[in-house]
Amino acid sequence: MATQGQVITCKAAVAYEANKPLVIEDVQVAPPQAGEVRIKILYTALCHTDAYTWSGKDPEGLFPCILGHEAAGIVESVGEGVKDVQPGDHVIPCYQAECRECKFCKSGKTNLCGKVRSATGVGVMMNDRKSRFSVNGKPIYHFMGTSTFSQYTVVHDVSVAKIDPKAPLDKVCLLGCGVPTGLGAVWNTAKVEPGSNVAIFGLGTVGLAVAEGAKTAGASRIIGVDIDSNKYETAKKFGVNEFVNPKEHSKPIQEVIVDLTDGGVDYSFECIGNVSVMRAALECCHKGWGTSVIVGVAASGQEISTRPFQLVTGRVWKGTAFGGFKSRTQVPWLVEKYMNKEIKVDEYITHNLTLGEINEAFHLLHGGSCLRCVLSCE
Amino acid sequence: MATQGQVITCKAAVAYEANKPLVIEDVQVAPPQAGEVRIKILYTALCHTDAYTWSGKDPEGLFPCILGHEAAGIVESVGEGVKDVQPGDHVIPCYQAECRECKFCKSGKTNLCGKVRSATGVGVMMNDRKSRFSVNGKPIYHFMGTSTFSQYTVVHDVSVAKIDPKAPLDKVCLLGCGVPTGLGAVWNTAKVEPGSNVAIFGLGTVGLAVAEGAKTAGASRIIGVDIDSNKYETAKKFGVNEFVNPKEHSKPIQEVIVDLTDGGVDYSFECIGNVSVMRAALECCHKGWGTSVIVGVAASGQEISTRPFQLVTGRVWKGTAFGGFKSRTQVPWLVEKYMNKEIKVDEYITHNLTLGEINEAFHLLHGGSCLRCVLSCE
Repeated sequence: MATQGQVITCKAAVAYEANKPLVIEDVQVAPPQAGEVRIKILYTALCHTDAYTWSGKDPEGLFPCILGHEAAGIVESVGEGVKDVQPGDHVIPCYQAECRECKFCKSGKTNLCGKVRSATGVGVMMNDRKSRFSVNGKPIYHFMGTSTFSQYTVVHDVSVAKIDPKAPLDKVCLLGCGVPTGLGAVWNTAKVEPGSNVAIFGLGTVGLAVAEGAKTAGASRIIGVDIDSNKYETAKKFGVNEFVNPKEHSKPIQEVIVDLTDGGVDYSFECIGNVSVMRAALECCHKGWGTSVIVGVAASGQEISTRPFQLVTGRVWKGTAFGGFKSRTQVPWLVEKYMNKEIKVDEYITHNLTLGEINEAFHLLHGGSCLRCVLSCE
Repeated sequence: MATQGQVITCKAAVAYEANKPLVIEDVQVAPPQAGEVRIKILYTALCHTDAYTWSGKDPEGLFPCILGHEAAGIVESVGEGVKDVQPGDHVIPCYQAECRECKFCKSGKTNLCGKVRSATGVGVMMNDRKSRFSVNGKPIYHFMGTSTFSQYTVVHDVSVAKIDPKAPLDKVCLLGCGVPTGLGAVWNTAKVEPGSNVAIFGLGTVGLAVAEGAKTAGASRIIGVDIDSNKYETAKKFGVNEFVNPKEHSKPIQEVIVDLTDGGVDYSFECIGNVSVMRAALECCHKGWGTSVIVGVAASGQEISTRPFQLVTGRVWKGTAFGGFKSRTQVPWLVEKYMNKEIKVDEYITHNLTLGEINEAFHLLHGGSCLRCVLSCE
C-alpha cells in the first residue's frame, strides 16, 4: 500500500483534558514497529469505560489520549515479525491481549494475558515505550492498547483478532467489549446450568448480554433488576422474564430476591460497577451454592464488603474481565456465532453517528435509551 | 438397656453464664423422642467455636447451655422411627446434619443440610421445640445440635454418623469438627491440584489439617503463615514446607507472599477467623485464578472487604463449613481413612484431661502449645 511505512495523517477524537469535549483533530499515526499492526478503523462504538476515563475519575487515566476500545477495521500495514495478520485482513482490536506464550495464557485458567500490559497500562507501545500518535510532534497517549476513536490506530499484534471478511464491521465492532463480556460472564465465569435461576443487576448492554447468555445456557428464571422500569420491555427480547425495580420495595433488594426465589438465586451478575449493588448481588444468592459474578467496573478506591458468613455458608464471589474470553482465539468464534444467528449483535445498536459527532454520542450514552452508539469513522 | 425410656441423670459441664467457669453438674437427660438418638459420650474435644460462644461474643449464644461439638460415643437408645442407628452403635455426633431429603442435601452442591437448623440454631429439638436437658426441672439449652460436654446427650438422627466399632473413640472424636474442616476445605471446596502453591493463615488444628490436605493433594509449596514462629516445627510434620511470620516483615503480608511466589499463590486458606487476615488471604492469591477459602469463623458483625478489582482480575472468594463434607456419609469414610493410616488424627492431640477438668482445658486451648485437648467423660 502507498501508506505503508509512512506516517499517516488522519482524523481522531483527542481527549486533551478530563471532562472537556473531545477535539476532532488531524493526528499523525506512525508506522507500526516490530510486533505491531496499524489498523484502519471503520466503525467504533462507545463504552462506559471510555466515559469513565474521560470523566477524570480514573486515576490511571492519562491525557492527552485517544480513547475507544470497541471497534472493527482493516489492517493497513504490519511491522516486522507480524505473522498472524496481513494488510487487508478484517480485524477487531482487543483491549485484552492473547500472546499464547505468557504464564497467564499457558495456565489454561484465565484470559488475562500479561504480555503487553506494562505498556498498555501507561498509554504506550512495548517496543520503545512510546506512543505512535502525535499532533504537531506532541505525543498523544494510547488507551487500553486500542485507541479506536481514530481513523487509524496502532496496536500490538497480540491484540488483534482476525475475523471473517464477510462479517459486517458496523455490527461486529460490538464484539470488542460489551457483548462478549456479558455472554462470557455466564458461559465462562459462572458456567450457568440449565434450569438455573439468575439475577442480573443493571440492564445496559452488558446486562442484556448476560441475559442472552443465561437464556442460551438454559436458565429458567432470568430476573432483571434495574431502577428504570422502562428497561424491562427491551430486556424481554434478550431473555429477561421477571423484573424487579429496587425503588418499588422498602426492603433491601437482596431480601426481595431471596423471598421471590425461595432462598436466593443460583447465579447473580453485577453489571453496573456499584459496590453496594455488588454486595446485594452476592447476598441475593442461594445459601450453599449461589455464585455472584462482578462484571461492572467500580470507580477507583471503592471497596466491596460483606459478612464472611455469606461465604462460609457456601456463596462464591467471583469477577470477570472480557467475560473470560481468550480474545484472539474466541472473538473470531463469536463473529461466526453472530453470522450463524446464534447470538444477537444488531439489537444492541440503538444509535449510529459519525466520529465527528462523538461528543453527542457520549451524551447519548448517559441517557437511558442508548445501548450502543456506533460511529462511522470514514 | 435398663436406661431406655428413662430419664438419665449424669454429669455435664453447664455454661450458666458467658465467660464464667463451666459448672460440672448432675443433669437430667430425657429419653429420645421420635427421630432422636441418645448417645453416651465417651470422649469430647474442645474447639474454638465452643470458646467463642462461651465468651459471650456470639449474639446467638443461649445460656444456660451445654457446649461441645467434637466428640464420639455409643448409642444408648433411639426414639421412634430411627432406622440408621441402634443401641450399641459407635457414633460421632455431627453439628452439620445430613437428612438426604431436603433441598440442600438433594442439590448435590452443598453439605449444608437445612432439616433441623431451625431448632439447633435456638438450642432445642425439632420434635417439640424443647430441650432434653434439665437441672432440677429447669431446662438447659442444647448447643449446635450436639452438646457433647455431657456424659449423655440427645441429638437428631440426621446428625449421627455411625462409624467402625474398631475405631478408637478417644482419637476419632476429632473427626467431628476441626480435622475434617481443614481437609475438606482443600479437597472439597478449593479442590487443590498437584503442583499448586498454597498459603495457610493460622497454624492451629484447622490450619494443620489444611496443610495435610494440601500435601495429600500434591501441592508443592505449602506456606504456613502465623505470628508465632514456634509453630513451624510442628507444622512441618503436617506438610508445611515454608513459613512466614507477618511480624517479621514491614510490608503487608499479602505483598510478602506475592513476592515470594512470583505473583501469588494458587490457593489460600484463612484458618483464624480474623477479617483483616481474610483480606490478606484473598489478596495474596495469583491474578487470573487464585482462590481463597475462608475457613475461620469471624466474630459476629465483622465484615470482609477488598477492592472489586481483586475479583474482576480473576481471584475467587469462597468459604467452607465442615469442609464441605456430607457428615453422615463422609465422617465414617474419614474414620476408615484414619484406620488405614491415610490421614493423621493422633498428632493433633496434645492434651488429655477429664470432663471434670474442662475449665483447665479451655485455659489450655488459648495457649500456643495446645492443638486439641481430649476429655474423657467416664
